[in-house]
Amino acid sequence: MAGEESVRNKQVVLKNHVNSGLPKESDMEIKESSIQLKVPEGTKDAILLKNLYLSCDPYMRNRLKKLEGSYVASFQVGSPISGYGVAKVVDSTHPGYEKGDLVWGMTGWEEYTLLTAPEILFKIQHTDVPLTYYTGLLGMAGTTAYAGFYEVCSPKKGEYVYVSAASGAVGQLVGQFAKLLGCYVDLLKNKFGFDAAFNYKEEPDLDAALKRCFPEGIDIYFENVGGKMLDAVLANMRVNGRIAACGMISQYNNEQLDAVHNLMYIVPKRIRMQGFIVSDFYHLYPKYLEMIIPSIKEGKVTYVEDKAEGLESAPAALVGLFTGRNVGKQLVVVSHD
Amino acid sequence: MAGEESVRNKQVVLKNHVNSGLPKESDMEIKESSIQLKVPEGTKDAILLKNLYLSCDPYMRNRLKKLEGSYVASFQVGSPISGYGVAKVVDSTHPGYEKGDLVWGMTGWEEYTLLTAPEILFKIQHTDVPLTYYTGLLGMAGTTAYAGFYEVCSPKKGEYVYVSAASGAVGQLVGQFAKLLGCYVDLLKNKFGFDAAFNYKEEPDLDAALKRCFPEGIDIYFENVGGKMLDAVLANMRVNGRIAACGMISQYNNEQLDAVHNLMYIVPKRIRMQGFIVSDFYHLYPKYLEMIIPSIKEGKVTYVEDKAEGLESAPAALVGLFTGRNVGKQLVVVSHD
Repeated sequence: MAGEESVRNKQVVLKNHVNSGLPKESDMEIKESSIQLKVPEGTKDAILLKNLYLSCDPYMRNRLKKLEGSYVASFQVGSPISGYGVAKVVDSTHPGYEKGDLVWGMTGWEEYTLLTAPEILFKIQHTDVPLTYYTGLLGMAGTTAYAGFYEVCSPKKGEYVYVSAASGAVGQLVGQFAKLLGCYVDLLKNKFGFDAAFNYKEEPDLDAALKRCFPEGIDIYFENVGGKMLDAVLANMRVNGRIAACGMISQYNNEQLDAVHNLMYIVPKRIRMQGFIVSDFYHLYPKYLEMIIPSIKEGKVTYVEDKAEGLESAPAALVGLFTGRNVGKQLVVVSHD
Repeated sequence: MAGEESVRNKQVVLKNHVNSGLPKESDMEIKESSIQLKVPEGTKDAILLKNLYLSCDPYMRNRLKKLEGSYVASFQVGSPISGYGVAKVVDSTHPGYEKGDLVWGMTGWEEYTLLTAPEILFKIQHTDVPLTYYTGLLGMAGTTAYAGFYEVCSPKKGEYVYVSAASGAVGQLVGQFAKLLGCYVDLLKNKFGFDAAFNYKEEPDLDAALKRCFPEGIDIYFENVGGKMLDAVLANMRVNGRIAACGMISQYNNEQLDAVHNLMYIVPKRIRMQGFIVSDFYHLYPKYLEMIIPSIKEGKVTYVEDKAEGLESAPAALVGLFTGRNVGKQLVVVSHD
């Protein structure tokens, strides 16, 4: 076996769990190991990936905790972090994949990953769009925005749509989908062409800010923030309003969850609040691609990415999600080809 | 006109609004006025009612407040309280009603009520069941339970159903509907034949009580209580659970609304929480009657009523809703015929 190609494999390894508070770069470390660029002999249905782009996503905050019974498994101390990414198949004993295929799905935060039981993995068919888009716009975040907005929010033309964390991977898309449908959309006017804007972290009075941006109230709230933001929105919802609860990033670092006082409004306003998880909607991915690929090519949908260069920058990029450092979809470039 | 029949009309009149705290009997007073037992000449589409039974309902708490922009109008100080009731038509210039008709709908807390613009009024067709049932089981509360359970909860056989305030007008029915469908139902084992029971006001640890009654978790929560009860339930919901928010009686007297901390569970558990108001579902009333009348006659559905005798007892009966004095549907008997 000494004659086989063996290469360096840099990895982002978890040093310790982070149950509360902001995660720090020092909770992870860069380690070097080595790997043979071949699926080990006798291993069936395995794929060896060269990772190109890694995705930093807010849901990963929960995987940094030592949790039991969560819908996502905790990361293992001493092992590489895992997450969504774009990769190239280097070797495969899996009948569905062959060398040279481009894929997106769950991979490791390392240069090369051996997948022995691929669970979430999609072959990339359209390569005439930026490959990085498969970490966000054409990957998990895009499918989340599509399913969350069209399937969960039941949107109608002319409705008032508020998206929190609208500079993020999902939020910026929901805003654009809503504009395409002819809704009035809040947040990030300058960058994305929405109708109004404020920064929820800098706003001393969220209720007043919402009343300023939505004097008529809110029909649809795409929830990415939770806590005080949700509380203020509940008081500003319109009758028959819908809240799609995609995530609550403001709560992920808290030891104590924020109090929400305004749930009473749900009854007289007949509000529907629905939590959802993208993995329940992956069957819609082909339908989403059919809609989104032409929209990208026609320039109807744009996507802002925040690229960190090199695997070494991955811990800082992940940590930055929770301090709001990123503008647009945060990804890490491991290799350009 | 002196020759026309003029009679005493006792009324329950609001003395002052009650914006927070428990309402007291002394917030209302019994007054006597007089009324002619005829629709005044020249008044079109009017109906003169003799009130038989009046319904005490939790939503009336909000009408005791001086509110603006609420989905129900505030009661007027100095005027009789209004609410659901069963009545007999004494005189009518309305083409849809004639003398002797029995009706249920919105009427006044008085012996006789002149309706000049009846909004919610149903003619009673089935009189081979107790007439009092039209204050609850066959009226607003019954339609609420029917629409809330079958339309809002999307129930399936075998699911775990938790009903809070299950001794009330709506709760006792939801529990029975769920049992008929083959669900496991909590609350009020002895009286209504449900599967488990506890009193939310006496339970020091709601979370432990729920875990005891629902070790497998809760699929459907029919919400009548709110606040701490809702918070505890959120932590005990199962994946894809549904919460029908019918009311939140624990919050109606509060100046400050209770904090709910566990909304985060809505995302990973994909919980759907839906507020609803019965008036959006009155088109289903005929369908509900088709289902419920045979069920009553076959003894498949029972209904516990708590009857207060005489209009004078109405203020105490209403106030008692909020201290949990009633067991079953609280109504006031104004007259037996």
